[in-house]
Amino acid sequence: MTTQISKLNEGRVRFQGMVDVVRDKKNIQFIVLKDFSGKIQVTVDKVAHPEVGEVFSHLLAGSTVLVEGELIKSEYVKLGGREVLADKVEVTSTAEAYPIGPESNIDQRLDYRWIDLRQDKNLLTFKVQTLLCNAMREYLNDREFIEIHSPKLIATASESGSEVFELKYFDGLAYLAQSPQFYKQMANSSNFGRIYEVAPVFRAEKSHTKKHATEFTSFDLEFSWIESFEDVMALEEEMIAYALKKIKEQYGEAIKETFGVEVVVPTLPFPRIKLKDLYSELEKRYGYVTEEEKDDLSTEAEKLCARFSKEVYGHEFLFVTDYGARKRAFYHLRKDGIPQGYDLIWKGIEITTGAQREHRYEVLKAQAKEKGLEKDVEFYLQFFKYGCPPHGGFAIGLDRMTLNLLELPNIKDAMFIFRGPERMTP
Amino acid sequence: MTTQISKLNEGRVRFQGMVDVVRDKKNIQFIVLKDFSGKIQVTVDKVAHPEVGEVFSHLLAGSTVLVEGELIKSEYVKLGGREVLADKVEVTSTAEAYPIGPESNIDQRLDYRWIDLRQDKNLLTFKVQTLLCNAMREYLNDREFIEIHSPKLIATASESGSEVFELKYFDGLAYLAQSPQFYKQMANSSNFGRIYEVAPVFRAEKSHTKKHATEFTSFDLEFSWIESFEDVMALEEEMIAYALKKIKEQYGEAIKETFGVEVVVPTLPFPRIKLKDLYSELEKRYGYVTEEEKDDLSTEAEKLCARFSKEVYGHEFLFVTDYGARKRAFYHLRKDGIPQGYDLIWKGIEITTGAQREHRYEVLKAQAKEKGLEKDVEFYLQFFKYGCPPHGGFAIGLDRMTLNLLELPNIKDAMFIFRGPERMTP
Repeated sequence: MTTQISKLNEGRVRFQGMVDVVRDKKNIQFIVLKDFSGKIQVTVDKVAHPEVGEVFSHLLAGSTVLVEGELIKSEYVKLGGREVLADKVEVTSTAEAYPIGPESNIDQRLDYRWIDLRQDKNLLTFKVQTLLCNAMREYLNDREFIEIHSPKLIATASESGSEVFELKYFDGLAYLAQSPQFYKQMANSSNFGRIYEVAPVFRAEKSHTKKHATEFTSFDLEFSWIESFEDVMALEEEMIAYALKKIKEQYGEAIKETFGVEVVVPTLPFPRIKLKDLYSELEKRYGYVTEEEKDDLSTEAEKLCARFSKEVYGHEFLFVTDYGARKRAFYHLRKDGIPQGYDLIWKGIEITTGAQREHRYEVLKAQAKEKGLEKDVEFYLQFFKYGCPPHGGFAIGLDRMTLNLLELPNIKDAMFIFRGPERMTP
Repeated sequence: MTTQISKLNEGRVRFQGMVDVVRDKKNIQFIVLKDFSGKIQVTVDKVAHPEVGEVFSHLLAGSTVLVEGELIKSEYVKLGGREVLADKVEVTSTAEAYPIGPESNIDQRLDYRWIDLRQDKNLLTFKVQTLLCNAMREYLNDREFIEIHSPKLIATASESGSEVFELKYFDGLAYLAQSPQFYKQMANSSNFGRIYEVAPVFRAEKSHTKKHATEFTSFDLEFSWIESFEDVMALEEEMIAYALKKIKEQYGEAIKETFGVEVVVPTLPFPRIKLKDLYSELEKRYGYVTEEEKDDLSTEAEKLCARFSKEVYGHEFLFVTDYGARKRAFYHLRKDGIPQGYDLIWKGIEITTGAQREHRYEVLKAQAKEKGLEKDVEFYLQFFKYGCPPHGGFAIGLDRMTLNLLELPNIKDAMFIFRGPERMTP
């Protein structure tokens, strides 16, 4: 393996890169080569090395080369003040002319996603997403969480109202999991105590918003021995603050330069407000009224949370609690009829639903029955028959979190490869 | 959240746990409570606290409680020399009698997997798997690898001979990815440079061996700017040694005690042998002959590798190289007709196939054509038309690696929840 571009030092070098730009002058060529770590200017003296100049003069962006030469420091070179005076080149792959450019629309860019991803901002997006996910994992690993890999092939169409994908499974049928919720909780019943999973989930929904996809990555966790959903919110806010601090340290400047976004490390605790009080405040402050039932957060109210939280608490995040039981999953634990859970709103977009779960078999069964789900979730109810610790947890959409962090125009930009009702390629 | 059992200190304590054992004597009770972190003995003086004794006398294993009392050190107590003299108890969930026990057969145990997983050895298995996976991730994160989440819903039935699952996708059809191979390589083409993915893969195979499942977790990686498949083997052996060292440090003793297995941190480099030479050696040393074509490793020869590698190299691992082109995937780069790849055999079980990949569009297309796959992989070939760095990589089955590490009887024991042709529950 040749040395990555960011680690090349002065003196004789031999390295590889992808052609970014070739500027071909009469006696000299300036080429920018890049790899995952950075870019470097390569200069070719066409008089001294005509055979090298000949090679570069025919290469289009995207072609890859192995170069040898002398690396010198030069204050005239923008790209980190380094320049390679090349005297040897070997072409390792040749590129056709790109059918798209940065100015192409999102659908054209997705058609050629592998070229689109070569843009600097896209590379940065996925470096940031990598750190985001791993910083959250690190936070959990430090607290003895166990990682599970729950099945995506399931025997019964599960929990929520979302449509599920059905498939032929040998002589029978199977469904794709739209959430690892039931299996996370199985792990609590198994005395795993603290668990997480990062995996794809599948939603057969014909949504065409900028936030929806039919397949996306869910960052899920659940932990036992809690005493209230306050424990769940406390862990989530700490974990997010931990991750955003790491992001700011490593990529804060690059994010500001590339996306114009200031990464803010949130203060703890995040502000909390009851749904009912939120509606009063939104009406009082912004004259917001709605015809909808107020046991759930309307899309408009969700958006207004950004402004409200910033103005009142000086914060980007907001925990909204005390939703109506009618609108929450049957497995949320209730106290005096109120689901012991929350939504977390960040910059006006919901990124998480969390809750303490009902862990008592009889109560859980009754709540499932109330929603007409008793039959559908029979296998799940078994997990609670032989004892189960009190527990709670939440799920974060990793792509949506990335979208929000970098304030990208569309979830499609936050996903390596997007899947939607009309998009199955590449 | 109450304090985990392993972190309870002398003095007044208030904590939660799951009932493991209750020994009820005339005037005293000894109860073992456990959580994910450990176990502790709880002692109840039934004369002084009859109401506490009354509660415990009715609780079956699996029930969960919140206990208060005095933690004292006692040299007579086996469980870490700690004992809680309980004076208060609150039941948080009650368990029915277990329908299975450690002596039940594997199918009965899988029927009630959530109870089966409460066994100490199963908890340890998944703690080890968590560290294994995260140590490998850590090794890659330190080397600037990017984590990708490639789609599991794909438009065309892909690469190898394995059967794929088909599903209805709105008005059309889709397939479940049996490997992220093509999308990993797309990331190389996208100049992501170094990437990995840990995700489920799906195989619609009617296999019933102790090593196969229809859904399992694949630890996949790929990296650019290599010069030979030696670079791929070098990274893999280093990563595995790094992870096993961490495993040995943190769980070496527990693994020895629980599974009777000595974790060996392998020396570098791992031994390497060409397939042809391996067959000669197996014949010479063990009289092994086969009627099969010798361009692939037979199951019997694979098993013999354990003995061979141990006796000749004093090593648990063995890289086998120079397979026949007929038996290797079309996307392996060839040199003088020989696929530039390898299998890694550990304790007589193949855990990895790796290779340098063919990154040149025209050559790749010709190799696909030779295997009659030109049409099927047309979308994939596009990834190479606009340039692509030389690259290589491999995949490790995480469950199979766990099976091997702990020398478990069956892959079912290495998976949180197993999926097979006849097994879709829980």
